[in-house]
Amino acid sequence: MTESKPIRVTVWSENRHEKRDELVARLYPDGMHGAVKAGIEENLGAAVEVRTATLDEPEHGLTEEVLANTDVLTWWGHMSHADVEDEIVERVHRHVLAGMGLIVLHSGHWSKIFTKLMGTSCTLRWRSEQDRELVWTVDPTHPIAKGIPHPIEIPQQEMYGEFFDIPTPEELVFISSFSGGEVFRSGCTFRRGHGKIFFFSPGDQDYPVYHHKDVRRVIANAVEWAITDRPERAVPELLRYETGDFFNGKSYQGANA
Amino acid sequence: MTESKPIRVTVWSENRHEKRDELVARLYPDGMHGAVKAGIEENLGAAVEVRTATLDEPEHGLTEEVLANTDVLTWWGHMSHADVEDEIVERVHRHVLAGMGLIVLHSGHWSKIFTKLMGTSCTLRWRSEQDRELVWTVDPTHPIAKGIPHPIEIPQQEMYGEFFDIPTPEELVFISSFSGGEVFRSGCTFRRGHGKIFFFSPGDQDYPVYHHKDVRRVIANAVEWAITDRPERAVPELLRYETGDFFNGKSYQGANA
Amino acid sequence: MTESKPIRVTVWSENRHEKRDELVARLYPDGMHGAVKAGIEENLGAAVEVRTATLDEPEHGLTEEVLANTDVLTWWGHMSHADVEDEIVERVHRHVLAGMGLIVLHSGHWSKIFTKLMGTSCTLRWRSEQDRELVWTVDPTHPIAKGIPHPIEIPQQEMYGEFFDIPTPEELVFISSFSGGEVFRSGCTFRRGHGKIFFFSPGDQDYPVYHHKDVRRVIANAVEWAITDRPERAVPELLRYETGDFFNGKSYQGANA
Amino acid sequence: MTESKPIRVTVWSENRHEKRDELVARLYPDGMHGAVKAGIEENLGAAVEVRTATLDEPEHGLTEEVLANTDVLTWWGHMSHADVEDEIVERVHRHVLAGMGLIVLHSGHWSKIFTKLMGTSCTLRWRSEQDRELVWTVDPTHPIAKGIPHPIEIPQQEMYGEFFDIPTPEELVFISSFSGGEVFRSGCTFRRGHGKIFFFSPGDQDYPVYHHKDVRRVIANAVEWAITDRPERAVPELLRYETGDFFNGKSYQGANA
Repeated sequence: MTESKPIRVTVWSENRHEKRDELVARLYPDGMHGAVKAGIEENLGAAVEVRTATLDEPEHGLTEEVLANTDVLTWWGHMSHADVEDEIVERVHRHVLAGMGLIVLHSGHWSKIFTKLMGTSCTLRWRSEQDRELVWTVDPTHPIAKGIPHPIEIPQQEMYGEFFDIPTPEELVFISSFSGGEVFRSGCTFRRGHGKIFFFSPGDQDYPVYHHKDVRRVIANAVEWAITDRPERAVPELLRYETGDFFNGKSYQGANA
Repeated sequence: MTESKPIRVTVWSENRHEKRDELVARLYPDGMHGAVKAGIEENLGAAVEVRTATLDEPEHGLTEEVLANTDVLTWWGHMSHADVEDEIVERVHRHVLAGMGLIVLHSGHWSKIFTKLMGTSCTLRWRSEQDRELVWTVDPTHPIAKGIPHPIEIPQQEMYGEFFDIPTPEELVFISSFSGGEVFRSGCTFRRGHGKIFFFSPGDQDYPVYHHKDVRRVIANAVEWAITDRPERAVPELLRYETGDFFNGKSYQGANA
Repeated sequence: MTESKPIRVTVWSENRHEKRDELVARLYPDGMHGAVKAGIEENLGAAVEVRTATLDEPEHGLTEEVLANTDVLTWWGHMSHADVEDEIVERVHRHVLAGMGLIVLHSGHWSKIFTKLMGTSCTLRWRSEQDRELVWTVDPTHPIAKGIPHPIEIPQQEMYGEFFDIPTPEELVFISSFSGGEVFRSGCTFRRGHGKIFFFSPGDQDYPVYHHKDVRRVIANAVEWAITDRPERAVPELLRYETGDFFNGKSYQGANA
Repeated sequence: MTESKPIRVTVWSENRHEKRDELVARLYPDGMHGAVKAGIEENLGAAVEVRTATLDEPEHGLTEEVLANTDVLTWWGHMSHADVEDEIVERVHRHVLAGMGLIVLHSGHWSKIFTKLMGTSCTLRWRSEQDRELVWTVDPTHPIAKGIPHPIEIPQQEMYGEFFDIPTPEELVFISSFSGGEVFRSGCTFRRGHGKIFFFSPGDQDYPVYHHKDVRRVIANAVEWAITDRPERAVPELLRYETGDFFNGKSYQGANA
C-alpha cells in the first residue's frame, strides 16, 4: 500500500428519528451519522476524510459531484426508505458498479439501494426487546475482522434473525447470536460490478450501538476494505472485440444495428 | 425423489427474430422456444409438461395463473428486452423469490428479469464470428453436469467473454473457451429468495445451438435441478417473533407503528 | 430421477462408548450406529439399503469390497480417532475422491478422514453442559433442508462453537446457537474430487440426539444429496492430452520420463 | 495500512532442473527462485525482504526459525516432490494454519504441502507444446488483480487444463485459456486455519514465464494479499469454554479425561 491520499468517506443517514424521538436524540446528540463519522475518525485518523449527508438535504446530499468524490459510502436508513428518490438510488447504484465502496448498516438492509444490489427481498425476522447480541468471527483472517474481539458483546440490541433473504454472501465474516436464541449472518461481503459492499447488522436508533468501540472498529476496517484497487471509476460496459484484439472494445450499437 | 407429478415448465422467448430474419426462421422453424421445448422433452419425457409463452401474447403469456402453475421458467430474449413490461418483470421476480425456478439462456443475460435478480450490469465482451465454443465442466459432481461430455463442442457460436459483470456465482459449473482465446463463465447457479436460478450461455438465434444434443441435455438437467424442494410457494416476509416463540411470526406494521 | 436401485449406505461408528459407559448404553441400546441406521431407514424406507461397520471389526469393517459397494458412508467417532488405521483412512479417502458420498457426524470433525479431506485442524470451542441447541436453516432451498423445521430444537446438547477451523464451506446450510450464546456452522457441504461431503454437528454419545426426528431427517436428506451423479467411480488422474484431442488422455510417466 | 516493517518472504524452489537441464539453466541463470525473488523485489522494493531456500539445503532451507520469520512463503516444485521430507511438510503446514501466507506456483499443484492443504488429488490435464496462454481476470476488484492487464498474454506455455481436482476456490481471480482450447482456473485463493493461500498456475521450467512482467506483478500482489492481519501466529486449538466465559479457553484433556 503506497496510497497516501486520505480515503474519502461519505456517511449517509436519514436523520429523522433524531429529530422526532427523544430517546434517539439523547443517544445520538450529533445524529447517528455523527456517531458513525466519529467512529471512523477515531480508528483511521488522518487516513480518512469523512463528510456526512442526510435525507432532507437537496438530492439527499448525494449529488453527482459528492459521489464522484466518495471512495466509500456508508448507508443507514429505517423509517423513510420510501422517501429516497429513485433517481438518487440509480445514481448510487451506478457509482457502486463503477467502483465506489458501500457499507450498509443495520436497517439499511431494507433500503432501496441494498435490495436493488441484492435482487432479493432482504427480509428477516426481528424483535426489539433488549436482547444481548454476540458477534462471532467465522473468517478470522479477513481484513474486516482485524483487531475485533471474539465475540463482540453488545449488551442490548434489536434482534435480527434468520432467514435473512440475501444472496449467499461472497464472504461471511460474522455470525451473531441473540439471547432469545436466534442467529444472524451479521457481517457479509458482496461484489457488484467494480464495487465492494459490506453489510453489517449491529446498530439501531434505540440502542447506543454506534458508540460501541468494537462496532466502530468493524466499520472502520470495512472502510479500508471497501476501496476498489482500480485506477479509475468505470461502470462495466458491453463491448465488441474483434478476433485477436483483446484490448480495444467497440461500443455496442444495439441488437438490430 | 418420490415426486411423481410432472415438472411444469414454461419456455419463454421473444419470438421476433424468427419472424423477421430468414436465417433464424430456417434454423428454428418452430421458433427458438420450440427448439428449447423439444430439447427438454427429448430428455425428460413424461417427467415434464412443457408449454411456451412469447413476447407478443397478452401479458407476454405470463399471467399470474401461468406463473403460479410453473415450476421452472426458461427465458430467452435478445432484441426486445425493453419491450417486456415492468409489471410482468415484477411478477416474474416475485414468483422467483417465492420458489419458481428460472433458467436464463444466452442473450437473456441482458434481460430485465436477470439484471434485476443480479443487481449488476450483466455486461460482457462479445463478437459474432463463428468461433468454436468449448464448454468445460469444472464441477463434475453437480447435477447439471450429469451425462455431459467434457468438453461440449459447439462448432460455431457467438463469442461471449469476460469480464462478465455478475455477482460471483454460488456454483460455477461450466467455463467456456472460444477459438479467439476468450473465456466465459458459461454455467452459473444463483439462489434468490426461495428460487433457484441457472444461467447458461450457449445458444444464439444465428446458430443452431438449441438443436445441439448436449446443450439440450444441460437445459433439461437444469430444469430438474431448479425445482425448489419446498412444499408451497411463498415470498420471504419480514416478521416479528416474540422471545421464545420461533414459529409464529407477526406481520410488520411499519417503522412508525 | 429415474434411479430405482436402492442407495447403499454404510453407517460407521466407533461403538466403544456404548460398551463402557452405562449412560451411552442406555441411550443407545442398539449402538449409536444402530440409531443412525434406524433414522435413515425411517425416512427413506425401501429407497435405501443400510449396513453398519464398527471400529473393532477386521479392517474396521471397511474392506475394499464394502467401500466399493457403498454409495454413501456416514462417520461417527470420538474417543478412538487415533485407533483408526492410516491404511483404512487412505482407502476411504480414495473412495471419496472417486465419488463415494461421506457424511461426517458431530465429533467426527476430529477424525483422521475429515481432517485429511479438509486440510485444516478442524478444531472448535466446546463445553458439555446441557445447552439447548437451535439449528437454523440459512439455505432454505437446499435439498438437505427439505422438510426441516426452522429451527430444529434440541433440548440438551454438547456445545460446539466458533471458530471452527474448516475451509469455508461450499454451501452453508445450517447455523446453530446454544443457550450459552455460542454459534456454530453446523451443516456444511464440501466437494472433494468426485465425492460430496456433508458435515452435520448435532449428535453426541451423552445425549439422545440420534433419536431426534428432525436430526434423523437431516441425515436422511444428506444421504440422498451425497450421491454423485456419475456413472462410475474414478479417482481424478493427471493425464496428457494432445492438441485437438479432448477425450483421450494418456497416463503421466513422471517429470523425468 | 500503517504497517511499516517490510514483508518477510521466503521463495522456495527445488533448484534441480537448473542444475541438470541446459535449457532451464539458460532461461534461469539465477535459478527459478532467483527469478521469482527478482520479480517480487522489482514490484515491492523496500516493502519486502526476500530470501530463498532450496531442496538440497539442510532441512530444505525451511528450519523452524526460517518459517517463524517468514510472513509469506512461495513454493515451486516439479520433479522432486517426493524428496521433500514429511517432517518439513508438517512444519510448513503448521505454520500455514498458524498464519503464514503461502503462494503455490505452477507445478507446485502436486507438491505434498498443497495436496495436504487441499485434501484432493490436485490432478489436471496437461500438455507441453508451446500453447499460448491468456490469463483473464474474473474478479477485477480483487487486490491480486490490481494493475494486471486483461488478459495477460503469455506467448508460450505448458497447457494446464480442467478438470483441476481442487476444492472450489474461495475466490476465483483468474481463468486461463490455451491455444488448444483448454481452460484452467489459474488464480485461486483458499483459507486454511489462519493462513491465506494463493495458487497461480503460469510458470514452468521450460518457458521464461517468471521473467514476464505481468506474472511477476501477480506474484507480488499475492505476497501483499497473503499476509494475515493477526497480531501473532497461532495454530487454532480445541478449547473448553465455561458458560458465560467467552475469552478463557482451557486445553482439552482428551475424550477420556
